[in-house]
Amino acid sequence: MVTSPTEFYERHRDLLDRAIEAAAARDYWSAYPESPSKSVYGEQAAPDGEAAFRALLGAEFPIEVPGATTTVSTELDADVAYPKGDPDDLIAAARAATPGWRAAGPHGRAGVAAEILARLNARIFELAHAVQVTTGQAFVMAFQAGGAHAQDRGLEAVAVALAESTRIPAVAHWSKPQRGGDPLRLEKTSTVVGRGVALVIGCTTFPTWNSYPGLFASLVTGNPVIVKPHPGAVLPLAITVQVCREVLTEAGLDPNVVTLAVEQRGEGIAATLATHPDVRIVDFTGSSEFGDWLEANARQAVVYTEKAGLNTVILDSTADYQGMLRNLAFSLSLYSGQMCTTPQNLLIAPAGIDTDAGHKSPAEFGADLSAALDKLLSDPQRAAGTLGAIVNDDVRARLAEAGTLPGVLHATTPVVVRLDPSDEKTYTREWFGPVSFVITTPTPLELFTRTVRQHGALTALVHSTSETFLDQAREAALDAGVHLSENLTGGVFVNQTSAFSDLHGTGANPAATASLSDAAFVTGRYYTLQSRR
Amino acid sequence: MVTSPTEFYERHRDLLDRAIEAAAARDYWSAYPESPSKSVYGEQAAPDGEAAFRALLGAEFPIEVPGATTTVSTELDADVAYPKGDPDDLIAAARAATPGWRAAGPHGRAGVAAEILARLNARIFELAHAVQVTTGQAFVMAFQAGGAHAQDRGLEAVAVALAESTRIPAVAHWSKPQRGGDPLRLEKTSTVVGRGVALVIGCTTFPTWNSYPGLFASLVTGNPVIVKPHPGAVLPLAITVQVCREVLTEAGLDPNVVTLAVEQRGEGIAATLATHPDVRIVDFTGSSEFGDWLEANARQAVVYTEKAGLNTVILDSTADYQGMLRNLAFSLSLYSGQMCTTPQNLLIAPAGIDTDAGHKSPAEFGADLSAALDKLLSDPQRAAGTLGAIVNDDVRARLAEAGTLPGVLHATTPVVVRLDPSDEKTYTREWFGPVSFVITTPTPLELFTRTVRQHGALTALVHSTSETFLDQAREAALDAGVHLSENLTGGVFVNQTSAFSDLHGTGANPAATASLSDAAFVTGRYYTLQSRR
Repeated sequence: MVTSPTEFYERHRDLLDRAIEAAAARDYWSAYPESPSKSVYGEQAAPDGEAAFRALLGAEFPIEVPGATTTVSTELDADVAYPKGDPDDLIAAARAATPGWRAAGPHGRAGVAAEILARLNARIFELAHAVQVTTGQAFVMAFQAGGAHAQDRGLEAVAVALAESTRIPAVAHWSKPQRGGDPLRLEKTSTVVGRGVALVIGCTTFPTWNSYPGLFASLVTGNPVIVKPHPGAVLPLAITVQVCREVLTEAGLDPNVVTLAVEQRGEGIAATLATHPDVRIVDFTGSSEFGDWLEANARQAVVYTEKAGLNTVILDSTADYQGMLRNLAFSLSLYSGQMCTTPQNLLIAPAGIDTDAGHKSPAEFGADLSAALDKLLSDPQRAAGTLGAIVNDDVRARLAEAGTLPGVLHATTPVVVRLDPSDEKTYTREWFGPVSFVITTPTPLELFTRTVRQHGALTALVHSTSETFLDQAREAALDAGVHLSENLTGGVFVNQTSAFSDLHGTGANPAATASLSDAAFVTGRYYTLQSRR
Repeated sequence: MVTSPTEFYERHRDLLDRAIEAAAARDYWSAYPESPSKSVYGEQAAPDGEAAFRALLGAEFPIEVPGATTTVSTELDADVAYPKGDPDDLIAAARAATPGWRAAGPHGRAGVAAEILARLNARIFELAHAVQVTTGQAFVMAFQAGGAHAQDRGLEAVAVALAESTRIPAVAHWSKPQRGGDPLRLEKTSTVVGRGVALVIGCTTFPTWNSYPGLFASLVTGNPVIVKPHPGAVLPLAITVQVCREVLTEAGLDPNVVTLAVEQRGEGIAATLATHPDVRIVDFTGSSEFGDWLEANARQAVVYTEKAGLNTVILDSTADYQGMLRNLAFSLSLYSGQMCTTPQNLLIAPAGIDTDAGHKSPAEFGADLSAALDKLLSDPQRAAGTLGAIVNDDVRARLAEAGTLPGVLHATTPVVVRLDPSDEKTYTREWFGPVSFVITTPTPLELFTRTVRQHGALTALVHSTSETFLDQAREAALDAGVHLSENLTGGVFVNQTSAFSDLHGTGANPAATASLSDAAFVTGRYYTLQSRR
């Protein structure tokens, strides 16, 4: 039985209206509960989800891939085989699916997208296990970041895409007064036309959270999407694509509007797809190296990247020293610092900082931060729940390298090292993973602006009790082109952003070309074409 | 006396609100009267404007240009000398003006922009003479396209830029419920930050109309703008920049938010400026050759181009043969076809077309179109008012070349030549100027889609009485990626678009990368940066 895109839209219309409202107001809102408790998702959700996940292991993942004749299995801890299609077949299938998807219109497409998200939410435990096994995140984090928060970010993209692409009315009546005669009249129709085949390149640490905004923004604006997961984290996106195809089929549409593109490690299929003349949109999260390459080489496409940078904390003064230390310790430790938002460079003046617990020199601050880390991570179960696992050997190698630097303040995960401004070669590298630096500098705001302008950053945090200093820090952040958090001492952390409220990333510095999810993130994905009569 | 940006905003608030409303509704609206009559602009406006224009001739144009030590004079029919600044000085001055402009905020900047437009409108007769003398347009056309319509397009860009850049609220309050505790609360501030120095590269045929959208969109979104006119049409933009600087100064701002960049013909200053690392936005109207070069080489900038293509008319049938012929004749003749929107390729099936005046073969249609052109242009005064003058030798050369082709249907301006589908090398070239082709082809929609997808187009027109054919033509236009007009037989012409209603251009085909003025035209010009506490 077919449920038309329009029927899906009607089914989810209230949710979509509310999401558009929330994305405009940027206050607190969430559509998908982040608590894995039984009182929210029901008694059976957890065991059923885990069983569904276990059933996928050791088998061929049930999904149709255009032109697939072989399978690949690339994940370290999940023995799943995925059908592998040829790039040309994937692109041809996406092109063939385009006219029907265009004809569904913005509202129909948003309805289909909302139904996909509802079904992803219904499979949230299964997805959380898939995220956990592929990324090494603790289960609750995988459930939240990989499940509910990813779905919220997806819905945010749906909302922004639907709102922006329907601002120009589908039909308008133009009537121009003419002196001494009837007015000139025209009826004008506007149609949203997608830019072309879209490619979403997933990352290994947040396979769903970082892929959903681009996936849903491209879908709602009329583009077919090829989803290319990182070989280390295929399963969460394979489930996602499976759900997309299931809903598309039920809507009477060509399921090849969304396809899965897998590869053997190192095969380079992302580069092949991204530079194909028919691929017109690329979303990428990952290394600066490949992100920069895509920006330089995928010239036929609009390229949205989230790369890496020097997330910075400026320490001036605080009215809650213990709260600040606890907050920082958690930010450095969460998922072993393997977040694109984890602070790397902590800047402090040689004179130290004034706090409610007295004046603290840089050495005292370093020792206190180290102690706060030890305290946070002293309980093994809490440590495991916070740190999760190291995702790959590259992170392990950086961790080992950092431990050999002089000035180590905290020797185990997360490693913290004290540096001087002259150690620029060290602190202007991005040390993705649990490595941070306490840098003593007489001019923290200047160093902040200069390094972030040049190397980028996704987050910045300032601690100060001085309104004057905070004003200067805000101006410095505007000059650096980075979002700023101020005086976080409680349950909000610099590495977390909230869908429908916080923008994540910005094209204003080299770490990204996009902001999740503002108008610029969607308006490059479609054209509005008019006809008049 | 200083009038603050906020005061300018308050002065023009009603107009801006109305403009935002009109740009969203896309129905008929205009802020600046297009009639040069005394009843609209007053007794003295015409003589005063002409006197002001005459006073500029033979003199150095009164404008300050950063670092200028010499002057240049490059216009053929207007002996005016303009101060010439060095690109590095212009960019340094623009950068220095940026912080104050950022601090003015979106509403303050829109207020300044609206005041600039009000003063440009007050100088509309002077501007019309400046456009006429530099472009060869007839006076009424210069007044309308170069004056009122350009100002409307400028205000449309102001409206879209203000609406889009203020969608994310300047202040938002986030309050997340916590189980068994106080909610987490954050105050969030959002600031619009311009992308960087903007460059507007003007063209020789519509120096104001094609420059105002980029100029005003960049200004309102927080960017300083360097205006680089075509050496053949400097005066209209010099007056514009003069007005901008006058208003900026009165607002207590650095006038170098807008500067004028002139050059000797062939100096190549546009390329130098466009590829400077600090230039982050480029707006260009002109040849495909230089537009493509900018897209390929101004990699550090977002590049909005309007280039050239194969504007196409598909002739299937009509219920008003005489109206169709009159309408086409005017479209081909207006400003001697020197509009980026003038039809070039008229497609007709070998079987001819059904009309209310009987069936017409391609040969009969060609003869009738030729007769309609003769009739339109038989009165010398009306011919002069319609055709204007040829803008340069390149157009003259193409006109001469076209006259030597076999199959000439109309030998004088505008030249019309009959071609076959096999003459693809001829009709897939863009013949900017008064040269059009009647192409007999059994598959007009296929030829239309194929050639426009490959070579681009700014306009397309279909004549048909068949709803089925019109549906097919609409689908073909969506596939080709071009706006479509249908059955124009009266006072609306395919080469004219109306601000606040018609989108002009689209990135959906190779002739442009921008649409005047949709959201995508403005959202790439700024970033929204948040701070939260």
